Amino acid sequence: MSEKEISSAVIKRLPRYYRYLGELLRNNVDRISSQELSKKMNVTASQIRQDLNNFGGFGQQGYGYNVEYLHTEIAKILGLDQENKLIIVGAGNLGQALANYDFSKKGFRIIGIFDINEEVIGKEIGGLVVQHIDKMKEVVEENGVNMAALTVPKTAAKGIAKSLVEYGIRAFWNFASIDLQLSKEEVVVENVHLAESLMRLSYNVNKQRNKE
Amino acid sequence: MSEKEISSAVIKRLPRYYRYLGELLRNNVDRISSQELSKKMNVTASQIRQDLNNFGGFGQQGYGYNVEYLHTEIAKILGLDQENKLIIVGAGNLGQALANYDFSKKGFRIIGIFDINEEVIGKEIGGLVVQHIDKMKEVVEENGVNMAALTVPKTAAKGIAKSLVEYGIRAFWNFASIDLQLSKEEVVVENVHLAESLMRLSYNVNKQRNKE
Repeated sequence: MSEKEISSAVIKRLPRYYRYLGELLRNNVDRISSQELSKKMNVTASQIRQDLNNFGGFGQQGYGYNVEYLHTEIAKILGLDQENKLIIVGAGNLGQALANYDFSKKGFRIIGIFDINEEVIGKEIGGLVVQHIDKMKEVVEENGVNMAALTVPKTAAKGIAKSLVEYGIRAFWNFASIDLQLSKEEVVVENVHLAESLMRLSYNVNKQRNKE
Repeated sequence: MSEKEISSAVIKRLPRYYRYLGELLRNNVDRISSQELSKKMNVTASQIRQDLNNFGGFGQQGYGYNVEYLHTEIAKILGLDQENKLIIVGAGNLGQALANYDFSKKGFRIIGIFDINEEVIGKEIGGLVVQHIDKMKEVVEENGVNMAALTVPKTAAKGIAKSLVEYGIRAFWNFASIDLQLSKEEVVVENVHLAESLMRLSYNVNKQRNKE
């Protein structure tokens, strides 16, 4: 199954399927039809059938999907069955919010949180003590950390990312308002550009306003 | 210009153009060619020309784009020339991060921040005092607030959103890990689902891992 190429549009939708299937599991639902799932998720049943057909032989007519099986298969595709080790760089409000968020159920382990601000160094957040950025190299190398969340000002982000690539980080969860253009091809970046998200909201508000 | 329908794919890219044009402006760049912008933004010059052609008559060959004009036009399309009044519901780390972030340059004014937790009520954050959620109705109605950022647990999000729609809110910036399905058609929602974003990163890491 993992050899099959799945389109990026489907991949984009997978985390949402995973979330809904997880909720069904927690509510002890064993099987669900594409129609029922369609109502819950507010997408067409045919879209759901098409998307989930990528994961092979289940979802028989009149029988529905096996929730647990599907949940497990999607987890594998998303790499959630493997442990990802994460550090957070920047212990401001956003970094603290991430540190306090419980990602562990999804296979993510936060190994360390770093800053340069003496006022937060030594502070305990989400069970971790904030360390000086000087300690990053050691922590990354000794623990085989593979991911970094960047919650630093944009002026600092590029330099830090460059160093982290040297230390062995291959994945960035980037919250800085900048595009990281890193030399190594194998480095992956997922951006969360909050200002851009807010502008899209503003666009839709404005469009609605012009309609009225 | 505002009557012309612009495709949603272009709209999605606009905030990024806006960010780059803003940077050019701050660096006193008056004009830029699609080739130069292409190098900076790491997209093809032809994509840029196509996208920016939506905004009409500029960008002559050998002459380039007028940075300020383009920046202003995109701001209008995004509704950034109008003031949006925002409240933040949930004064945890994420809510505090948003309150401290300076969105004012982009036309957003934060009017209030609310919580039910007595420990944060009364605390000053980003120049605002956290108020009890009971005060929301009054603040929204008296100030003509049109947007709300929801940084509350997912169990609380739906109920709060429903009340806010009654008070007159027509736009949600939703950080809760839930899809708000609101009855009113004219309500717009922009989701920031952090867990899903992290899963997409995990997917890409896993894909890279399988290549090696």
